Amino acid sequence: MNLQNNILLREGERIDDLNLKGYQIIQNPKFFCFGMDAVLLSAFTEVKEGDTVLDLGSGNGIIPMLLEAKTRGKKFIGLEIQEQNVDMARRSILLNHLEDKVEIHLGDVKKIKEYYKAESFDVVTSNPPYMNAEGGLKNSHEAKTIARHEVLCSLEDIIYAASYVLKNKGSFYMVHRPHRLVDIMVLLRKYRLEPKALQMVHPYIDKEPNMVLIKAVKNARALLKVLKPLIIYNEKGQYNDEVKEIYNE
Amino acid sequence: MNLQNNILLREGERIDDLNLKGYQIIQNPKFFCFGMDAVLLSAFTEVKEGDTVLDLGSGNGIIPMLLEAKTRGKKFIGLEIQEQNVDMARRSILLNHLEDKVEIHLGDVKKIKEYYKAESFDVVTSNPPYMNAEGGLKNSHEAKTIARHEVLCSLEDIIYAASYVLKNKGSFYMVHRPHRLVDIMVLLRKYRLEPKALQMVHPYIDKEPNMVLIKAVKNARALLKVLKPLIIYNEKGQYNDEVKEIYNE
Repeated sequence: MNLQNNILLREGERIDDLNLKGYQIIQNPKFFCFGMDAVLLSAFTEVKEGDTVLDLGSGNGIIPMLLEAKTRGKKFIGLEIQEQNVDMARRSILLNHLEDKVEIHLGDVKKIKEYYKAESFDVVTSNPPYMNAEGGLKNSHEAKTIARHEVLCSLEDIIYAASYVLKNKGSFYMVHRPHRLVDIMVLLRKYRLEPKALQMVHPYIDKEPNMVLIKAVKNARALLKVLKPLIIYNEKGQYNDEVKEIYNE
Repeated sequence: MNLQNNILLREGERIDDLNLKGYQIIQNPKFFCFGMDAVLLSAFTEVKEGDTVLDLGSGNGIIPMLLEAKTRGKKFIGLEIQEQNVDMARRSILLNHLEDKVEIHLGDVKKIKEYYKAESFDVVTSNPPYMNAEGGLKNSHEAKTIARHEVLCSLEDIIYAASYVLKNKGSFYMVHRPHRLVDIMVLLRKYRLEPKALQMVHPYIDKEPNMVLIKAVKNARALLKVLKPLIIYNEKGQYNDEVKEIYNE
């Protein structure tokens, strides 16, 4: 496949630099471009050498690609329900020559048992839709709505799927909105994914958090570590040093 | 009762100033002196004019007395199981002439139904023992152990009791340790006390939180507000302005 011709790049798509090992990603602003949440989740996720990793609701494949770049894991799989996203993600994989280590599977999180064996992954990640199916303003049934609202799968579907595919003591990493923290904790414990670490992400030190990063471990004992807050901007509105490092700036 | 004679002040006891409306409190370092957690919980708790307030596991009565001083509530009751604490708290109430508005009842949180009617309070507060009955180092079965460990009542006993006595839409305020946050949220939801607000308390801005303040509302819908963090000390090791204000300094 020729990277320069329009088989690789379809109408409305653009190529963005990941600022990491020369990787690039194909995005389409009409669908869903990755945001800071995906970058922070990738930085928060620990993958050990030889680990197999599954990303649930992978969008354009940003998380498997970032994790491949940053860790020594063996295999990175993204499961994604929207065909346009899968098609885009697969072309990004070719663009970066990652065919041997990264795969994007077309499929529905709710049918997880049809695709993977129980207890077959070391690490699961997810940057799921944040809004209740009922909540928030929904535009027509289109790509962005699916990515943002629990239209095609609920928070419970994702946590159930993560628990199903994770090995004993395997880790689940998720980024979400603080206002859903109770739902998240109750559901994680329900499916034996014990929350072990939590980090609040604040735009500024004196502002409420607008994201939360969570690590849960399958069948672990109850003891949560709440980390120091991650502050995005300093007083001058510039990235804090920690965030600069995450972005390789 | 003469405030100067030894009927008011028993052996080993001292009188501390609350820095608030001239109130004083009798404490005994052999038992349990109030700490910053009680002060922060009192500042976090909202009591409206005419409200009735119950404090579960009230120790030396610090929380009912601080809330009486700061709010326009009608009645403040502390329930406490240790006789020495009840005796001390009652003498502090006399010392401050609060007999008409503050009462300390001797009793066991687990027997809540014997003492109070269901749905009879507007606000419930608690600064409960932080440690699992099993966890941590336990010295002999004495006053400090009871105050710190879940020896005589568990977190679930307290949350059950709070739910039982609270009116519909009444508020429960608790201070606890962040590592128990999952237990707290799961139990609150189990007893229909929906967590509505959460504030992490950090000793310094770049340190992990060591306390968490939680507000839950009986029968409310699920939507948690995570507040901006409360930071105790500034870079110079002095109280931050917000904390100074809480301490009336």
